[in-house]
Amino acid sequence: MIGFTRGTLDRADRERDDPEALAAALADPAARLLRLRALEPEVDAAGLMVWDLLETLPTDATPLFLGYDAGVPRFVVALDGEGSPTSRSPNLMTVLAAMPAGDAATYAAARSLIDWHRRHGFCANCGTATAPFRAGWARRCPACAAQHFPRTDPVVIMLAEHDGRVLLGRQASWAPGRYSALAGFVEVGESLEEAVRREVLEEAGVPVGAVRYVASQPWPFPSQLMLACVAEATDDRISLDTLELEDAFWATRDEVAGALTRVEGARFDAPPDYAIAYSLLAHWLDAQG
Amino acid sequence: MIGFTRGTLDRADRERDDPEALAAALADPAARLLRLRALEPEVDAAGLMVWDLLETLPTDATPLFLGYDAGVPRFVVALDGEGSPTSRSPNLMTVLAAMPAGDAATYAAARSLIDWHRRHGFCANCGTATAPFRAGWARRCPACAAQHFPRTDPVVIMLAEHDGRVLLGRQASWAPGRYSALAGFVEVGESLEEAVRREVLEEAGVPVGAVRYVASQPWPFPSQLMLACVAEATDDRISLDTLELEDAFWATRDEVAGALTRVEGARFDAPPDYAIAYSLLAHWLDAQG
Repeated sequence: MIGFTRGTLDRADRERDDPEALAAALADPAARLLRLRALEPEVDAAGLMVWDLLETLPTDATPLFLGYDAGVPRFVVALDGEGSPTSRSPNLMTVLAAMPAGDAATYAAARSLIDWHRRHGFCANCGTATAPFRAGWARRCPACAAQHFPRTDPVVIMLAEHDGRVLLGRQASWAPGRYSALAGFVEVGESLEEAVRREVLEEAGVPVGAVRYVASQPWPFPSQLMLACVAEATDDRISLDTLELEDAFWATRDEVAGALTRVEGARFDAPPDYAIAYSLLAHWLDAQG
Repeated sequence: MIGFTRGTLDRADRERDDPEALAAALADPAARLLRLRALEPEVDAAGLMVWDLLETLPTDATPLFLGYDAGVPRFVVALDGEGSPTSRSPNLMTVLAAMPAGDAATYAAARSLIDWHRRHGFCANCGTATAPFRAGWARRCPACAAQHFPRTDPVVIMLAEHDGRVLLGRQASWAPGRYSALAGFVEVGESLEEAVRREVLEEAGVPVGAVRYVASQPWPFPSQLMLACVAEATDDRISLDTLELEDAFWATRDEVAGALTRVEGARFDAPPDYAIAYSLLAHWLDAQG
């Protein structure tokens, strides 16, 4: 299973604009509230996300409407603590992997939304302070009337393959031994496939031909859409961009298998199970037969 | 061929941060400038995009660096005329379809970039006026130091299929007879596949199971990444969201074939050749054998 997928939330898009439906959801005694502190969820002793009664909402706080899960209205509110958009506490991924997939997916949406509001309180078009509308799914400028919507940034993440091996790289800031698929933001004016070719060439100097889409994952650090692909390298000579990557190498099937099962002495430390890079490596290994 | 793909631009990402490389590109007598007026490109009598000498740049204007094409530095500048981010002149798509694919792809990047700067001159984090950096590929806030990058909004566009037919819809604002694949923005916290299922259910009330990715396209009105899919509908009963769609129906293979070849009396008017919806319909028709 790919982390943050298999969401069970009915986002109820129509109701975001419907004051009566929103009032009814807020008045529903079954309604539940998720509280984020420093962008991380409250969890109970069993490691499950706490969905508390809506009456626990601080009086000065406005919750955002997430939708319905199993028919129950769901809201989120940000409490104290700033939190970094891109980082996470050491145990968050473990906690998320152990909770029901639906809760992890709902958390991803809630975190991205809360973080977007925190860093987008002003109109990019004219600089005026904006206010939320659509139950928290947009902001509007009172001066120029521009509407602003949460960002979702598409990112390509890919395994270039050549002669039964795949290209892995590592950034200098990563824990020792960790290697993963290369990745990068899709830019304006390029297709997903073109972004894959550009990134592999930029970072590793490796030319790539055909690109095959494999799977996707939302990644709420802060709000990426990860698009995982396998790409056919037409040459295996590596020429590293050392500003992006500290190292890169071609991993064999056995090396990938060892890393994914996390055996002692594996050639590299695989990405966490919850990241789509792990799923992508597993997908590639399966395809090797 | 899918419109705006097959780009030939080397985006030279590293040089965006390299003052010496940029100065050399600007001083290169071979360097060429694209001028946009109201977001549309200057074209010559033959309908080709005009790449003029850099010395034709207005003295008060700063060009954005696009990269290199065939080794020649390429810049873009916006001249007079506002232009609407989402609309286009009637003949623009015809002009684009007739020019070399590389030029159309470069125009897509240039247009999205210019439009982003026009509507993002202020810091979303604190409201201060920002300034471009990275040769025009980012903006920076002098007050809070936030960096801002051009938006690329992922959009799913999909054909739900059921028993040899595909689901097509039309918006009330479209020209009479025009039908196309359903589409919608990917939201934070959802995968591409989840967005496909949500959109088909929201707009047409049709439940969808497996989703297969087909192809992608950048769409510079203003800056979408179109992700085209085929999805297996598990029921063919339509329940329309009339705020989104005016009508929807299940098109047969023959009806799609007639529309794509634009025969007299076709059941519907297909989207323009240049849109990925056209390519998606052609892909589906091919797969019917």
